[in-house]
Amino acid sequence: VPGFCEEAAVSDSECLGVVGVGLMGGSVGLAARRSARFSLILGYDVRGDVLRRAVSNGCIDEPCPNLEQLARRSSMVVIATPVHRIADYVLQVVQHIVPGSVITDTGSTKAELVQTVESAVPRETLFVGSHPLCGSEKHGPDAARANLFDNQLVLLTPTKKTRVLAVERVQQFWQSLGARTHLIPPDEHDRILAMTSHLPHLLASCLAGLLSRDVRPFVSSGFRDTTRLASGDPEVWSAIFTTNASNLLSVIKQFRAQLDEFQSALENRDSAGLARLLAAAKGIRDDLGN
Amino acid sequence: VPGFCEEAAVSDSECLGVVGVGLMGGSVGLAARRSARFSLILGYDVRGDVLRRAVSNGCIDEPCPNLEQLARRSSMVVIATPVHRIADYVLQVVQHIVPGSVITDTGSTKAELVQTVESAVPRETLFVGSHPLCGSEKHGPDAARANLFDNQLVLLTPTKKTRVLAVERVQQFWQSLGARTHLIPPDEHDRILAMTSHLPHLLASCLAGLLSRDVRPFVSSGFRDTTRLASGDPEVWSAIFTTNASNLLSVIKQFRAQLDEFQSALENRDSAGLARLLAAAKGIRDDLGN
Repeated sequence: VPGFCEEAAVSDSECLGVVGVGLMGGSVGLAARRSARFSLILGYDVRGDVLRRAVSNGCIDEPCPNLEQLARRSSMVVIATPVHRIADYVLQVVQHIVPGSVITDTGSTKAELVQTVESAVPRETLFVGSHPLCGSEKHGPDAARANLFDNQLVLLTPTKKTRVLAVERVQQFWQSLGARTHLIPPDEHDRILAMTSHLPHLLASCLAGLLSRDVRPFVSSGFRDTTRLASGDPEVWSAIFTTNASNLLSVIKQFRAQLDEFQSALENRDSAGLARLLAAAKGIRDDLGN
Repeated sequence: VPGFCEEAAVSDSECLGVVGVGLMGGSVGLAARRSARFSLILGYDVRGDVLRRAVSNGCIDEPCPNLEQLARRSSMVVIATPVHRIADYVLQVVQHIVPGSVITDTGSTKAELVQTVESAVPRETLFVGSHPLCGSEKHGPDAARANLFDNQLVLLTPTKKTRVLAVERVQQFWQSLGARTHLIPPDEHDRILAMTSHLPHLLASCLAGLLSRDVRPFVSSGFRDTTRLASGDPEVWSAIFTTNASNLLSVIKQFRAQLDEFQSALENRDSAGLARLLAAAKGIRDDLGN
């Protein structure tokens, strides 16, 4: 394991800084190394053991002892911490970053974060929100993969205040890591993700939480698939849920209405009605592919 | 494709008859062929095209034009149709079967079925309910696999009326197909499966059914995993739900109480409370493995 990086007076021309080197940040490091676009990959994490494992797994070249050094040396900074900590890290990085350097993140909710950042940072700051639609129920740098972003969609959430130059550089960055990019307003992002990602996670956790010990030997692959998301990091997902609470409450309401329909058909022993509901769901699910 | 089997005066000593040759029945045929325990595997299905594909896929040796011929020639009959049709098939097979031959099934609910069969068939009939805890969201003989039962659990649901000889022969049968077996009363089976299998399926279908067309491009692996079960056959699952309605309604009630807890924490923006609920669910899910 190399020692902490020495403080440098000027930023490296193509140095990447990754803040939070778990599954997502670690994978950003590995994919960036594979792209050979950066001469140096720096990492920072409040958890010393995670930072050391990120170095030994090759996710980053050098650990930084503090955020200031990482910010001063990096031309591109990616904040990959739990979402409720991202805005604070962006604001800290902004204080030390070299003009022209770009900041992005990997947070799963965007509206609250983007608003906090934009109301606090100078107009000339090159920040663009990002959200890679990939991941794993695993976490930590040991689960990081260089190919995590390959052909996956990364949503970018620029606003009217975002500099076009920053959007272009962040798009190129994710594309160099193997991803496709798509621009979408932060509010729209959060509304969609409540349905496609946050509700499934919440339902998986509700279901897993119900399973009493005596019935566990009878679980098969269907239960495992349906609850796979429940193995996600509780701190990460608690932050996602609370920063997208109103959209999530709205889709829970929709879900309850759908559950009412199934329950009503079941109470009436209405086989044909149940078959119709199941067939409609099957049609949608089959279209999504594997 | 061989022609229909000729009617035989006496049953083959080790002939297997499979009624319903979709994914489950087709896999029974393939696994039985692999075990080399039967000299002949006969199949019957009301759907002519399914029966033909089962022959061409090697799931069965010969299609039977009617149930009577299959029953007269088979020493072991497996009914692998949708669960609401099983009791009727058992009662038909009983009328023609040779004394000493054994009947079992693969139905996902057991209490209603076992009660119907036991109240209608003679005491000397060798019937034992079975339920292999494996399967796939795919269906039809094209999805059948010889290794579907390998190391999987098959639940047998004998009652006080069930002959010990029949239980032993059905246990040996599933074990020869690669499975492990476990005995459990039919009521207990249905109570457990409502939680471990039927509720997950219902939730997966509810969630898939909610997904509007405009958000489908933003779906990722988490949504796919959580809703995978929704691709199951609507007729099969409608029958499972209605034949286990009261147990399923009971676990839906438990699920709603758990959902209430998550929703309440979310309404209060209670990050710590959400993290505790998520951590409890993660502990249970992590224990289940992959």
